[in-house]
Amino acid sequence: MDGQTKILIKGGKVVNEDVSFVSDVYIENGKIADVGCNLKVPAGVTVIDATGQLVMPGGIDTHTHMELAFMGTKAVDDFYIGTKAALAGGTTMIMDFVIPQKGSSLLEAYECWRRMADPKVCCDYSLHVAVTWWSEQVKREMATLATEKGVNSFKMFMAYKGVFMLCDEELYSVFSQCKEIGAIAQVHAENGDLIAEGAKKMLALGITGPEGHEMCRPEAVEAEATQRAVTIAHAVNCPLYVVHVMSKSAAKVVAAARRDGRVVFGEPIAAGLGTDGTHCWHQDWAHAARFVMGPPLRPDPSTPGYLMDLLANDDLSVTGTDNCTFSVCQKALGKDDFTKIPNGVNGVEDRMSVIWEKGVHSGKMDENRFVAVTSSNAAKIFNFYPQKGRIAKGSDADVVVWDPAATRKISASTHHQAVDYNIFEGMVCHGVPVVTISRGEVVYERGELKVTPGAGRFVARPPFSEFVYKRVRQREKVCQPTAVVREPYRGKVVSKSQ
Amino acid sequence: MDGQTKILIKGGKVVNEDVSFVSDVYIENGKIADVGCNLKVPAGVTVIDATGQLVMPGGIDTHTHMELAFMGTKAVDDFYIGTKAALAGGTTMIMDFVIPQKGSSLLEAYECWRRMADPKVCCDYSLHVAVTWWSEQVKREMATLATEKGVNSFKMFMAYKGVFMLCDEELYSVFSQCKEIGAIAQVHAENGDLIAEGAKKMLALGITGPEGHEMCRPEAVEAEATQRAVTIAHAVNCPLYVVHVMSKSAAKVVAAARRDGRVVFGEPIAAGLGTDGTHCWHQDWAHAARFVMGPPLRPDPSTPGYLMDLLANDDLSVTGTDNCTFSVCQKALGKDDFTKIPNGVNGVEDRMSVIWEKGVHSGKMDENRFVAVTSSNAAKIFNFYPQKGRIAKGSDADVVVWDPAATRKISASTHHQAVDYNIFEGMVCHGVPVVTISRGEVVYERGELKVTPGAGRFVARPPFSEFVYKRVRQREKVCQPTAVVREPYRGKVVSKSQ
Amino acid sequence: MDGQTKILIKGGKVVNEDVSFVSDVYIENGKIADVGCNLKVPAGVTVIDATGQLVMPGGIDTHTHMELAFMGTKAVDDFYIGTKAALAGGTTMIMDFVIPQKGSSLLEAYECWRRMADPKVCCDYSLHVAVTWWSEQVKREMATLATEKGVNSFKMFMAYKGVFMLCDEELYSVFSQCKEIGAIAQVHAENGDLIAEGAKKMLALGITGPEGHEMCRPEAVEAEATQRAVTIAHAVNCPLYVVHVMSKSAAKVVAAARRDGRVVFGEPIAAGLGTDGTHCWHQDWAHAARFVMGPPLRPDPSTPGYLMDLLANDDLSVTGTDNCTFSVCQKALGKDDFTKIPNGVNGVEDRMSVIWEKGVHSGKMDENRFVAVTSSNAAKIFNFYPQKGRIAKGSDADVVVWDPAATRKISASTHHQAVDYNIFEGMVCHGVPVVTISRGEVVYERGELKVTPGAGRFVARPPFSEFVYKRVRQREKVCQPTAVVREPYRGKVVSKSQ
Amino acid sequence: MDGQTKILIKGGKVVNEDVSFVSDVYIENGKIADVGCNLKVPAGVTVIDATGQLVMPGGIDTHTHMELAFMGTKAVDDFYIGTKAALAGGTTMIMDFVIPQKGSSLLEAYECWRRMADPKVCCDYSLHVAVTWWSEQVKREMATLATEKGVNSFKMFMAYKGVFMLCDEELYSVFSQCKEIGAIAQVHAENGDLIAEGAKKMLALGITGPEGHEMCRPEAVEAEATQRAVTIAHAVNCPLYVVHVMSKSAAKVVAAARRDGRVVFGEPIAAGLGTDGTHCWHQDWAHAARFVMGPPLRPDPSTPGYLMDLLANDDLSVTGTDNCTFSVCQKALGKDDFTKIPNGVNGVEDRMSVIWEKGVHSGKMDENRFVAVTSSNAAKIFNFYPQKGRIAKGSDADVVVWDPAATRKISASTHHQAVDYNIFEGMVCHGVPVVTISRGEVVYERGELKVTPGAGRFVARPPFSEFVYKRVRQREKVCQPTAVVREPYRGKVVSKSQ
Repeated sequence: MDGQTKILIKGGKVVNEDVSFVSDVYIENGKIADVGCNLKVPAGVTVIDATGQLVMPGGIDTHTHMELAFMGTKAVDDFYIGTKAALAGGTTMIMDFVIPQKGSSLLEAYECWRRMADPKVCCDYSLHVAVTWWSEQVKREMATLATEKGVNSFKMFMAYKGVFMLCDEELYSVFSQCKEIGAIAQVHAENGDLIAEGAKKMLALGITGPEGHEMCRPEAVEAEATQRAVTIAHAVNCPLYVVHVMSKSAAKVVAAARRDGRVVFGEPIAAGLGTDGTHCWHQDWAHAARFVMGPPLRPDPSTPGYLMDLLANDDLSVTGTDNCTFSVCQKALGKDDFTKIPNGVNGVEDRMSVIWEKGVHSGKMDENRFVAVTSSNAAKIFNFYPQKGRIAKGSDADVVVWDPAATRKISASTHHQAVDYNIFEGMVCHGVPVVTISRGEVVYERGELKVTPGAGRFVARPPFSEFVYKRVRQREKVCQPTAVVREPYRGKVVSKSQ
Repeated sequence: MDGQTKILIKGGKVVNEDVSFVSDVYIENGKIADVGCNLKVPAGVTVIDATGQLVMPGGIDTHTHMELAFMGTKAVDDFYIGTKAALAGGTTMIMDFVIPQKGSSLLEAYECWRRMADPKVCCDYSLHVAVTWWSEQVKREMATLATEKGVNSFKMFMAYKGVFMLCDEELYSVFSQCKEIGAIAQVHAENGDLIAEGAKKMLALGITGPEGHEMCRPEAVEAEATQRAVTIAHAVNCPLYVVHVMSKSAAKVVAAARRDGRVVFGEPIAAGLGTDGTHCWHQDWAHAARFVMGPPLRPDPSTPGYLMDLLANDDLSVTGTDNCTFSVCQKALGKDDFTKIPNGVNGVEDRMSVIWEKGVHSGKMDENRFVAVTSSNAAKIFNFYPQKGRIAKGSDADVVVWDPAATRKISASTHHQAVDYNIFEGMVCHGVPVVTISRGEVVYERGELKVTPGAGRFVARPPFSEFVYKRVRQREKVCQPTAVVREPYRGKVVSKSQ
Repeated sequence: MDGQTKILIKGGKVVNEDVSFVSDVYIENGKIADVGCNLKVPAGVTVIDATGQLVMPGGIDTHTHMELAFMGTKAVDDFYIGTKAALAGGTTMIMDFVIPQKGSSLLEAYECWRRMADPKVCCDYSLHVAVTWWSEQVKREMATLATEKGVNSFKMFMAYKGVFMLCDEELYSVFSQCKEIGAIAQVHAENGDLIAEGAKKMLALGITGPEGHEMCRPEAVEAEATQRAVTIAHAVNCPLYVVHVMSKSAAKVVAAARRDGRVVFGEPIAAGLGTDGTHCWHQDWAHAARFVMGPPLRPDPSTPGYLMDLLANDDLSVTGTDNCTFSVCQKALGKDDFTKIPNGVNGVEDRMSVIWEKGVHSGKMDENRFVAVTSSNAAKIFNFYPQKGRIAKGSDADVVVWDPAATRKISASTHHQAVDYNIFEGMVCHGVPVVTISRGEVVYERGELKVTPGAGRFVARPPFSEFVYKRVRQREKVCQPTAVVREPYRGKVVSKSQ
Repeated sequence: MDGQTKILIKGGKVVNEDVSFVSDVYIENGKIADVGCNLKVPAGVTVIDATGQLVMPGGIDTHTHMELAFMGTKAVDDFYIGTKAALAGGTTMIMDFVIPQKGSSLLEAYECWRRMADPKVCCDYSLHVAVTWWSEQVKREMATLATEKGVNSFKMFMAYKGVFMLCDEELYSVFSQCKEIGAIAQVHAENGDLIAEGAKKMLALGITGPEGHEMCRPEAVEAEATQRAVTIAHAVNCPLYVVHVMSKSAAKVVAAARRDGRVVFGEPIAAGLGTDGTHCWHQDWAHAARFVMGPPLRPDPSTPGYLMDLLANDDLSVTGTDNCTFSVCQKALGKDDFTKIPNGVNGVEDRMSVIWEKGVHSGKMDENRFVAVTSSNAAKIFNFYPQKGRIAKGSDADVVVWDPAATRKISASTHHQAVDYNIFEGMVCHGVPVVTISRGEVVYERGELKVTPGAGRFVARPPFSEFVYKRVRQREKVCQPTAVVREPYRGKVVSKSQ
């Protein structure tokens, strides 16, 4: 039973994506029961004084890989540690990925992930499902997942050739099915053929260190695939969501597509907004290896600022982390060959602070846009708004009380994740979560965590998200191709040769 | 006394910028008293059945010129007829422009406009003030207007050389003062020098008809000035609002500036979104002259669709009309010389329908974005959100009940404006206002108007709009230029010659 | 024996790509023997008075398909008729394509084409070779063709799925081999997967007419493939040549790539510069079918002007025609299904006039740029400059005397091609070829053709064209990727699971 | 008497903009008498063995300010030292600027400059004339200069408010006159109003050092003015030449204008291609001050590479230096106030090497494009091609023998200029001039200079350069605006009020 506690958050500035206003917030039964001044509340409520602070929807991390088995090892943040760390950072929901093996059942993989996550999660979560192969079975299972299992988003890999990669024809089929069932097509956009060739080339040149990882898959490889995905999705009028937009050129593709009217969303991640790929050229192998992920962090140091500009401007829409943490001894599997370094970075705990520092403190976006990109837009796209992503009567009581003036220094020595380093090590961030409330319970308060494994619930997401599909459906209706009406040709016809 | 009536709008779909939901809306004392299902309401309320229809914030037209004396004549829509027509079309607030003569007092002009409008307006209204010259007096009066008169937006003309035009140095000063007092700088962006020269050139070539109007001020003239305004505004860190963005190239300048992080807003108008400048080449002089406005409607027929794409994508932010109507016999003042054709078109009545048809029915935007661009964004930018621009408890009861499936044909023969033609003549629009409620009173219902001159109120707008100035202030704080700390130069210095 | 005739072209304005000057031109033994004023020439020379006219290098059509067997029928212009028509239009060299079947020998196909063309050609010609599959044999044969057969350009299809299309991995291999042997990689850039799916979709919607051809492969399909080809070519540092750039968006991709420093060339064709795809929506099926080619002519009527702007500006480099002519009775093979309409249009005869009219007469380019894009650049890229493409001592005597002031009306009733229509029907062109000289013989003069089948020669083109490869080689030298030098990692390594 | 010497350059590779070829070059009477192999030459010729080396047209520096009196002092390189240094670096012609005071005669200023330069110049030179005010007299004198004095280019300042700056209306007039007389309009493109305000602001903030120079006139100030100049020039159909393009954003404006078909040319300079503005933030004041010029070198370190990409791609056309050298003790006039630091840098000697290193050695352009951007294009634009800018029979014998493999290190300790530092100090350049020939005489050979003051001649440049004006004239002819033919309006006309 959750949400037993009655909580009154007093005197804070409530921040929603459209406006901020000073107000109390009353929580009961895991829901926001009321928002207003001078609320009448029962005796015995827990009162949180938020004077001078911001009361915001808890963060939604759109992209995590807890305890993922990958590249011969397993991510060290499991669903328990990962969600605990999330809560410590002000994030109250994660969206993880079910990744079935090529040829195996999507439904079984989904059930497997549910069994793994359900008993451990300390906050609410949801699941995207990867489509790593194509068949009639896959098509059917996608429909089942959408209608019965609360999955309205499917991710396709254009990279990881021979493992997860789909070719264009398969993408066309999967995107078509997504549109049919009202799901959002997600892509990992990199040209897997070029990566495979590039990796061979770099190794042949004697480049075996972490820098080789980026050199074999430079920006153009990401931008190309992004453009291709946009083109294919448009051909079937399917909404598209590009996960982890990591480069300026890929972000430009997304921005241009949106300007052309495409229903496409771009997701930068905390790593890409808060640090860059120059680290992969670091003299210390272990340092360099920590920053290896795919698509790579870019060596162009103007990348993070540029991505933030586009995030501020709604060219990019939401933020995740691709949290997939491997400790140094795991990264070391690739000590002699960068292609064997497990790909992945941390972020689930620090995303909110990093975006506040680089986005809000810098003056690039205001607190309202912060809420949009850290929670509201995710909830809209994936169809659980305003259940989450808004401080309003009736919404889930997933709330963070935020001190915009305080600072904290990020460090592996103090973070709550299992991984033994932090890619943001030493970064001083304005914007500190003071209290985190999940499902109506205070789970984090001024450094103290009070979490319960299994307290989080799976959030089922119905298909045909209005935010995404209203335009799609209208276009289907009014933009149908039509034939020219003509008299039949009655002239001579040559006989066919050959 | 307004808002005596108690109204229950039942069963409609409430549309706000972030989400739509089926709900009742209860109105009392001119305010929205509650939004929800199964509301308890007193006996005797007026019930409006909105089943199957949309309940949206009434439109806000950001740009009108009622009864403006201009080019030797006066606009035929006065504040009474103009606001009445607005209400018939689902618009419940207009923002008009005070335009003082060069050298005369801004405050006196403001009072003059108030005296003109207050007794006539049938809906709420507000006033921007034009700054047509520069002096210490102007500077002081701007401050007074901002702090005491509810004006937080000032428009500067980069065109109308010798009449209203300011030079770059003056723009710099006015923008600086805007930032100082927390106002938004608005610009009519066209290069007035080039227009003056272009007009001479066209007349010299014997081109005296309406087409000459556009030929002497093509797109590049608008785009240039837009770029210049963006540059000057950025130099003083002042927010900028470009009124009537009429061309693809000017819109691109606005979009690029936003992507670069500039605090700039672009306002397309109904005319630019719904029709184009090819009409100015029409064989019938009277037909052609109707479409003469500045900046001109563009002959490139892909312009309206492009502007709508950018409006859908938030590259452009709000919509006005530049409603400034001159009947054909007034237009005829320029029958032998296009420079004498009074500039202006209609729009205040039809804006909502035109944008619905071209924007929503076409699938380019959804109903929520429609609300954003027809009311919410205006209210945010000009600092009266959520007083207006949202259907929420506590907001003004300015509401339109909208039938998205119905159609109507626009025609001068049926419109409520005083002008004797309509630039959208014959356009069939999906999206029809069924009921309009202003200040809690039903003023329009299925073709019937029940308006009262003077029933509208002046909306005072405080300075330092949060939506606009939060980022501006933060940047001021964190982006101050700083000097390099150096040892003084102690070497030889040449003696100055000349 | 060719070039027996001695010819003096007197008093014309010699036009080269860099400059024009009034001069005589003396021709002997098939070569330009001298250029200058007051040349001493032997008695008995044929004198051509070119006063008031331009003396330019004969045109080089970079892209033809004479007598191609394709889609169940054969192009009606064979090498005799095709080259005769070329000469009538001022073009003195064509570059045709050898297209081997998937799985068959490139060398054999090359020899087959030589046998077909050699006895028929009335002017010089050369051959590109298509690579329609990949194997060690293909790789070897490419090298042989480059070193022994005078072929330094290979075309790969990204369209025609299942017939000619190569996948990305194959493109990578072919491009790598091109760079190895010093050849230029050419691509037909359209996403073949999307075309295949699009065609199915259109037919399913009942769209069977010529308009369906474009609707199943809109601009984005071309732009996507162009971007992909640019990316792959850059990954292997191979020069790229995009044949028949047909759309604004594909042209933008080429232009952007050049600005980024890529060694890439774009080839618009006469059809794309002189007409547009609106014709495919024509009410008369036969009319519409004439304009069917791949990639399609675009329905956006601003396309030709835009392509010409980019051609003028050197964003695009050379011009061909894709001359591949099927008479109406052949087109009629697809009378009930647009996918069966043989793809191809005319152009070899009219290219020079069309480009003069739309490019030079319009003021977009001058006569010197005209020479660059109709001959010099082709000769440079494909490595036979200044043998051809320049009026200079020692160059081949392939010359056209051009009357820039005269006009002619293009018509199937007067053209020299075999096809029974002309896509430029009725176009009045300024710029008329008065005399054409091929290999030092007057072959066309004021309407009279005097051609000899087999008089033309095959132009062997050595690999490693300096114009193309100087930069490529230098980059190979100075831009090699290098590894970071590091101490080996000596820490703990996890053992591999799974 | 010049060109007495007979010179045979043997065995080198002749490099012209279109092609390179191994050939001898024979020089006589100051002209190139012949180009070819096995030339018959008289006895007693001076033979220069150029085996393994390049024989190129001598460089043309389009932009110098020798011995300019400016900001209270005078540039230390006079016409003697400056041209001597030019020759040592492989440059055989400079184009300097006559800058009359506001209100004074252009003709007198021109004569003054001639008197200053003629007796001192060691190589050929020419003069642009600045138009710093506007009147009927100026208009007349421009015509006289064009028709009688060999001046076909006039520079206008959009900066230096109150000193040289013209306003838009004046620019319109000057551009119109330029087109009338067949001249090229040149602009120094920066918004002078913004610079004036920016300088005040920086000083007020206590920023007095060299970094303040850039901070008060950032990129946007240059890009804005460039866009404005392009717009005004287009309005009068006048060719435009943007001197010293210093920023990525200004370069983009030029590139976009060219793509839109504008007749506009951009000139980057050696400083902008070889170094950047980060130096102005140097801790040592004297170091920082050396790099102060206007428009400023940009602190974005990706600027030089970007400008070179655009120069390689013909988005930018020619290269100058803005050589205007002030020694440190002169720079020190602004030791307490950056607005008093004399603006200017060196470059005339090192331009060729810097461009070779950054452009050719880097693989961005080939040797042919190098010739185009260092000489041929300048000669074409300013109308003395192929007199200069080409190795061809009949051209001036201004030649440089270039060793592409050798390197030299640039240093103030070894350069031939008068200034006591070098902004390229320490740069190692591939590409070294071995022999320089000016007007048919060897003036520099392997470190040895043999120059004669006054040996250079003034190059008169006729108006209506074909390279520039062919398109302009054609457009005048075919693109005249035309009026719509209409029946007169016969309806009612309102009487004019007010």
